[in-house]
Amino acid sequence: MKIVNLLIIGFGTIGRGVAETLVGKREFIRRNFDADIRVVGIAEINGSIIDENGINLSEILKLAENGRLEEHPKWTSRKARYLIRNLDIDIVLELTPGDMKTGEPGLRHITESLERGIHVVTSNKAPLALKFSELSRIADENNVQLRYEATVGGAIPIINLYRNCLQINRINSIYGILNGTSNYILTRMFEELVDLEVALNDAIELGIAEKNPEYDIYGIDTGAKITILANSLMNRDISINEIEITGIQEIGVDTLEIAKKHGYTIKLIGDVNELEVSPRLIPINHPLNISGVLNAIMLHTDVANKITIIGHGAGKIETCSSIFSDIIAILDKASMLHNYNCKNLHG
Amino acid sequence: MKIVNLLIIGFGTIGRGVAETLVGKREFIRRNFDADIRVVGIAEINGSIIDENGINLSEILKLAENGRLEEHPKWTSRKARYLIRNLDIDIVLELTPGDMKTGEPGLRHITESLERGIHVVTSNKAPLALKFSELSRIADENNVQLRYEATVGGAIPIINLYRNCLQINRINSIYGILNGTSNYILTRMFEELVDLEVALNDAIELGIAEKNPEYDIYGIDTGAKITILANSLMNRDISINEIEITGIQEIGVDTLEIAKKHGYTIKLIGDVNELEVSPRLIPINHPLNISGVLNAIMLHTDVANKITIIGHGAGKIETCSSIFSDIIAILDKASMLHNYNCKNLHG
Repeated sequence: MKIVNLLIIGFGTIGRGVAETLVGKREFIRRNFDADIRVVGIAEINGSIIDENGINLSEILKLAENGRLEEHPKWTSRKARYLIRNLDIDIVLELTPGDMKTGEPGLRHITESLERGIHVVTSNKAPLALKFSELSRIADENNVQLRYEATVGGAIPIINLYRNCLQINRINSIYGILNGTSNYILTRMFEELVDLEVALNDAIELGIAEKNPEYDIYGIDTGAKITILANSLMNRDISINEIEITGIQEIGVDTLEIAKKHGYTIKLIGDVNELEVSPRLIPINHPLNISGVLNAIMLHTDVANKITIIGHGAGKIETCSSIFSDIIAILDKASMLHNYNCKNLHG
Repeated sequence: MKIVNLLIIGFGTIGRGVAETLVGKREFIRRNFDADIRVVGIAEINGSIIDENGINLSEILKLAENGRLEEHPKWTSRKARYLIRNLDIDIVLELTPGDMKTGEPGLRHITESLERGIHVVTSNKAPLALKFSELSRIADENNVQLRYEATVGGAIPIINLYRNCLQINRINSIYGILNGTSNYILTRMFEELVDLEVALNDAIELGIAEKNPEYDIYGIDTGAKITILANSLMNRDISINEIEITGIQEIGVDTLEIAKKHGYTIKLIGDVNELEVSPRLIPINHPLNISGVLNAIMLHTDVANKITIIGHGAGKIETCSSIFSDIIAILDKASMLHNYNCKNLHG
């Protein structure tokens, strides 16, 4: 059995989702992928927990839910970079929120991990939306994998779908709805003709939107995602600064009302070919007319023709489907792991 | 560069689609997958063409389109089984139409190929709908792969999607629209309130339905597909004879009219959990309300939650996306190929 050491950087919603999923799926992973995944470090903004024998995740989750992570007996003031440098790690999970201007702190975490020959799996869009080709090059040079399925479409496995299931295809276009918060707001506005502010406040109250939902409403989040899709699936070499972005902030109920009368709705569409994010009229019976927090992505390819995939664009647990898909893809190349170990832990 | 020898059994619509795709994608495959795919045999019901140096596919396609395959200088009366036994083959593509009672002739072709240590990629549902576990066992025993993405959902990569992109998930349910012909007919009946016979005749005229569309209308085709999904993705061990099947043959325009009045349409749904195929009421704004020849499959899983994937359920070229996905998956394990060859063909 392979022993796989993880370092989790960022223990917010997604980080805790990963820990919960791992608690529930540890046996499943052992049985199906012949791997024992241990979390040897969890780094938060103000310190970290280290246990080279594997952190007891159930214990940590209880503390974290009560905001008392610092009471853990192994809590130290060490930061993520210390852990990257000093622990024996196979895969870093970079799950911090990213600043879309600087990409930090994730950019530094990812760069340093790759340079040290550690695989990286991330849900953090900002570093990739700013420095995609640079990070890819560093990964290649160090012969490690940088994987980022969770950065686009939450639980929708769009990147692995193309790479692992549609390999013979050339993509002619990709577009879709890539932000659940703005889609929830537009759906409420369309169905109930309520104002954007009302729908937004409900979204915040329901935990769908973050307290600072600017990236969602102004289309920045969607812009980051189409940047990543353009770079990863369509051989572009661009940053988010090259995307023309119009958000939904100016959309009024009156506009949705007129659209509705003519058999249309309005959706915030990210268009990878046009490198554009904008609200667009979508016929009511179109496959992209999905409601609520769902995301939907359409691929046009030369062989398979059109493929549409719809799923949860966010969510504590849902997003972990993508993160673990990336982790398992790395496990599949066992020789790429540092501490590949033929010894079966259980016998 | 790997040299990969293919034997194509069955040179109907899909077989010709494979040949066309290969002509167009040969360079793409060389560049991206470091493999040179050669078709060394094409077997039809009454004979075959053999060329161990690789058949000129453009030439063959021209002859086949004019129904003059037998005029090829290398045409012989040898049958598929002779080719399986006597050629140096890495992968057999079994693309014949299958008899849903016996599974033949595909069942014999697949069994014999696997027993001889040859990988098999097939679009032929019948053998798998009847003898799934037996064929899987033979593949395992002979350490070769049996792959069948094209048997379910045409271009929709449902099996590889689960295996390669949703690995951490347990599937709680799978259901969907898996037959393009019946969906075309129901769509026409719903939208234009025409009789089933009218819609069916149009489908035959347009080449959507085969001349003998019984398997489509009576739900047998959908039943075969959910049998394959149950066995491959949900650990069942069943044959199509255990599926409760109701087709669309009894559906009248009046039924669709009443459904429409209440905001519903009727779709032929294959339900893997219930092992059932039946026409069901579907709300008009439901993601499964797709029109025309499209297929749509919904997965409910424990981590990713709901994933819906929509695409072309059939088509000469579209289906090749799935066939080549399987071929490339086999290429990825280069050591599994007989004639793995490091020599670069081009110098």
